[in-house]
Amino acid sequence: MLSVYLSGEIHTDWREQITEGADGMGILFNAPVTDHAASDDCGVAILGGEESKFWHDHKGAKLNAIRTRKGIEEADVVVVRFGDKYKQWNAAFDAGYAAALGKSIIVLSPPEHQHALKEVHAAALAVAETPQQVVELLTYVVEGTLPK
Amino acid sequence: MLSVYLSGEIHTDWREQITEGADGMGILFNAPVTDHAASDDCGVAILGGEESKFWHDHKGAKLNAIRTRKGIEEADVVVVRFGDKYKQWNAAFDAGYAAALGKSIIVLSPPEHQHALKEVHAAALAVAETPQQVVELLTYVVEGTLPK
Amino acid sequence: MLSVYLSGEIHTDWREQITEGADGMGILFNAPVTDHAASDDCGVAILGGEESKFWHDHKGAKLNAIRTRKGIEEADVVVVRFGDKYKQWNAAFDAGYAAALGKSIIVLSPPEHQHALKEVHAAALAVAETPQQVVELLTYVVEGTLPK
Amino acid sequence: MLSVYLSGEIHTDWREQITEGADGMGILFNAPVTDHAASDDCGVAILGGEESKFWHDHKGAKLNAIRTRKGIEEADVVVVRFGDKYKQWNAAFDAGYAAALGKSIIVLSPPEHQHALKEVHAAALAVAETPQQVVELLTYVVEGTLPK
Amino acid sequence: MLSVYLSGEIHTDWREQITEGADGMGILFNAPVTDHAASDDCGVAILGGEESKFWHDHKGAKLNAIRTRKGIEEADVVVVRFGDKYKQWNAAFDAGYAAALGKSIIVLSPPEHQHALKEVHAAALAVAETPQQVVELLTYVVEGTLPK
Amino acid sequence: MLSVYLSGEIHTDWREQITEGADGMGILFNAPVTDHAASDDCGVAILGGEESKFWHDHKGAKLNAIRTRKGIEEADVVVVRFGDKYKQWNAAFDAGYAAALGKSIIVLSPPEHQHALKEVHAAALAVAETPQQVVELLTYVVEGTLPK
Amino acid sequence: MLSVYLSGEIHTDWREQITEGADGMGILFNAPVTDHAASDDCGVAILGGEESKFWHDHKGAKLNAIRTRKGIEEADVVVVRFGDKYKQWNAAFDAGYAAALGKSIIVLSPPEHQHALKEVHAAALAVAETPQQVVELLTYVVEGTLPK
Amino acid sequence: MLSVYLSGEIHTDWREQITEGADGMGILFNAPVTDHAASDDCGVAILGGEESKFWHDHKGAKLNAIRTRKGIEEADVVVVRFGDKYKQWNAAFDAGYAAALGKSIIVLSPPEHQHALKEVHAAALAVAETPQQVVELLTYVVEGTLPK
Repeated sequence: MLSVYLSGEIHTDWREQITEGADGMGILFNAPVTDHAASDDCGVAILGGEESKFWHDHKGAKLNAIRTRKGIEEADVVVVRFGDKYKQWNAAFDAGYAAALGKSIIVLSPPEHQHALKEVHAAALAVAETPQQVVELLTYVVEGTLPK
Repeated sequence: MLSVYLSGEIHTDWREQITEGADGMGILFNAPVTDHAASDDCGVAILGGEESKFWHDHKGAKLNAIRTRKGIEEADVVVVRFGDKYKQWNAAFDAGYAAALGKSIIVLSPPEHQHALKEVHAAALAVAETPQQVVELLTYVVEGTLPK
Repeated sequence: MLSVYLSGEIHTDWREQITEGADGMGILFNAPVTDHAASDDCGVAILGGEESKFWHDHKGAKLNAIRTRKGIEEADVVVVRFGDKYKQWNAAFDAGYAAALGKSIIVLSPPEHQHALKEVHAAALAVAETPQQVVELLTYVVEGTLPK
Repeated sequence: MLSVYLSGEIHTDWREQITEGADGMGILFNAPVTDHAASDDCGVAILGGEESKFWHDHKGAKLNAIRTRKGIEEADVVVVRFGDKYKQWNAAFDAGYAAALGKSIIVLSPPEHQHALKEVHAAALAVAETPQQVVELLTYVVEGTLPK
Repeated sequence: MLSVYLSGEIHTDWREQITEGADGMGILFNAPVTDHAASDDCGVAILGGEESKFWHDHKGAKLNAIRTRKGIEEADVVVVRFGDKYKQWNAAFDAGYAAALGKSIIVLSPPEHQHALKEVHAAALAVAETPQQVVELLTYVVEGTLPK
Repeated sequence: MLSVYLSGEIHTDWREQITEGADGMGILFNAPVTDHAASDDCGVAILGGEESKFWHDHKGAKLNAIRTRKGIEEADVVVVRFGDKYKQWNAAFDAGYAAALGKSIIVLSPPEHQHALKEVHAAALAVAETPQQVVELLTYVVEGTLPK
Repeated sequence: MLSVYLSGEIHTDWREQITEGADGMGILFNAPVTDHAASDDCGVAILGGEESKFWHDHKGAKLNAIRTRKGIEEADVVVVRFGDKYKQWNAAFDAGYAAALGKSIIVLSPPEHQHALKEVHAAALAVAETPQQVVELLTYVVEGTLPK
Repeated sequence: MLSVYLSGEIHTDWREQITEGADGMGILFNAPVTDHAASDDCGVAILGGEESKFWHDHKGAKLNAIRTRKGIEEADVVVVRFGDKYKQWNAAFDAGYAAALGKSIIVLSPPEHQHALKEVHAAALAVAETPQQVVELLTYVVEGTLPK
């Protein structure tokens, strides 16, 4: 069974497009928590508030790392999605983390970010522009068939 | 002997500030190629031109990866610098790569990037704002002494 | 499925509080043998008595290590509980063992031990004070939801 | 060349006794920062103060970890010293860390801690009571000769 | 359960002979995509055409690598088949990849390639000439019985 | 679930005693092929005869290694049995192989071999003299209970 | 210092062209034994003759593997040269071996082999056609300068 | 530089024959303590006597393991010598330990032990009968030349 981790941008429905498109192939999908507010505040919500924004964020980021690391470490394929907005350093961090572990990386990114992502692309086994292409890539990996 | 890799931003003299500040402590410093034009064009300059910008960049990014990977893999400490401009996804990628290898990470970043870098900061053993702080951190690690 | 090892103090019901609180989430929990007398005497009870207390303890500690190592090595998350009494060096040893293997560590410890545990806390992704917080942390990791 | 890391208690001169006793055998010794005040305050002294004692300690413990991890990871032998006072959980943590990395461990501990240290002793290749014994152990490992 | 990856030549029915011959032993077989045309064109079919033959092939080879790497990394035994025609460098590459990962290698090759394959044979635990022999080898490994 | 590999002597029923004694605990047992004649001749029986006894044995030993390595690598616990006769270097080899992989080792050996086995015993977590003791050790590891 | 292993074809002077071209950069070069006759016969010349060509070659290939494995395992960069003649499966095997170890690979191959080498090229960080290009690649990696 | 560990039999001068024969090739040789009495009694001589022979031997074997493990782990080549007498299980244990670490193994053994050593031989890259052959093997590995 193929295990796929869907890293990166959390503001559009690209994960749903992929998991629905790949329905029925027996792929195991994992992802970070995609509820932005929960993801930002999880540390202090459970472990108590912090006056400093740095430690507020630190507690949350470490808690999220428990899920993220497990997701990447257990994946055969890590799909890293870069969107149009924000710094998205966590997506690039995940890509580097996956690369050092020897994971197969698929980058899903818009053409306008091509030059800025060249080091990330160089570590990937495929660079796609649409979720549909990712579905087709996974279909080929699992079933050996190409889109008609 | 401590081996330190200086990753990230290549437009200011932060590397010189650190290597000069740490002079005499026997630290081995490595870094990527910091000549921006050479770094962008190295692939095609040696192996032949490409019509597509994607493959132009790809050849260069892969060639640079030979040096970058060796630098990170041989380092005890990876200092990752985020500056004011550009996407800097390669810096975040290096941080993720270093984290997965269990390297000690020092992030050097301005306060305004704090929230966007929270996942990278969470993987670091120290977050500094100035090259002088990095010098003091390395001095403490090597010599066990604090600034007066 | 998340695998969690519950290391440390064996004199209160904190393990039951966590496993009951996390009931229904499909988490696999493991733990050392928590029968204090059996744990102390297991080696000599099976393999024959020793005149020296050192070797009596040695045989038992090695036998317990078979279970403990497997528990930590197979865990995604290692929860290490420090209580109010005893030296608890085995708990700190487990934390170090888990840290070197790159496991996600949650420390469960009372505030009065904060300074003495600072190196252990520094290796953890979360520091909790109550079993209920650990339940909430695990709930967030598995289900992505926060307590209301 | 044998590389030895001297972990644990920092209030007596046991490190000096060992390094002086082993003088001339070409052993490379490393150790944590043993200046207690510097070790406690290093994080805030360099990176800025914290109101919370937890984060004050956290910044320091992480900075110390840069040196400690390198010392353990590069060592062939890790000597872990337990003294008469304090919790010394960092010593037990180092022992666990070293054990998971497959390092040869020598524990240096007083007889009264025997039972409480049984798990740590079980992971060690030798348990000594005096620095002189450690010197003799290292002499035997390096030169193959026994004390007369 | 034994996991076996069937690498190499894709123009004869040797894989079918082995999987049918080993039917009922509970072995999990994996293999690369054996549809030659799909394998050659998969990259551009999904991700868009390339003018250069090098990049056309490159995109396809990288996509195939996602499946191939997973297949080898999860295998207990890698069977590498060399046929009569073509360069078959990918088969030898897979053998080297499997060898470095410590996999048990069975080479299936005709006698006339003996000298040219000596380095590959030297890394194998068995060198067979027929698929039937591979079936018998796997039967022995799983069930401990020899052919009558 | 605990996975146990039963290595060594193949002329008495010690494996049956252990697997029957541990019945109902859900332990997964593996072992080498214990049919002595098949084990000796498997290589030439399948792959063709050899004039030289060395290569006759070599082919068989390599084929057996496919099963042995998988058995040891997948085991949590490796039980190594030394009997009264023969050189039994393969048993000691398996013990060394298991030790280097960090497996928990239980040695099952008669008292008269104590001195000759001291290096093997030193790498073990338990040294038993009877299969019944091994059953009790495994029972304690899995269920945490001692014999009455 | 960069360590480079020069694998593959042994009938032209490409190794000399590279080592001479890279003279003065402090690169450590290693290579297999390039005396074809010695390489073929080394096993039997030292350990005694074999009637079977298979075992003659086997003994030699295993002896050569001692040098080859060390060369690849210690290298930062593995250059794999494919020439015009012979099967060259050992070169492809070395490339696979290097890839699995995460080494940086440079392939040196003529254009006519492009399609047959696509899987090997896909694992490489650079594909060169001339030794001079390899010299320029290594110069860039070490010194960061491009040819004028 | 080649690093060679000389394991096994300690009653003849085979180590001297090899180190003298290989003089001038820059090989780094290591070995266990070969003073039989010191090796047997080292544990109790330094750490205090034991009434039980088992623990007497145990303390010594563990102390010797500090040197032995380092020697094997740092070696490129492990030569394992089996002599005419004794059980020599420690030699076979070292061979298994070296095999699991992927070391190149040379076995030095008399013909009469061929069948009993078949599993050890199967893990070796060369099987020699005389120290002179080992010298010639090492000469070939280092210098690429054969005996005349």
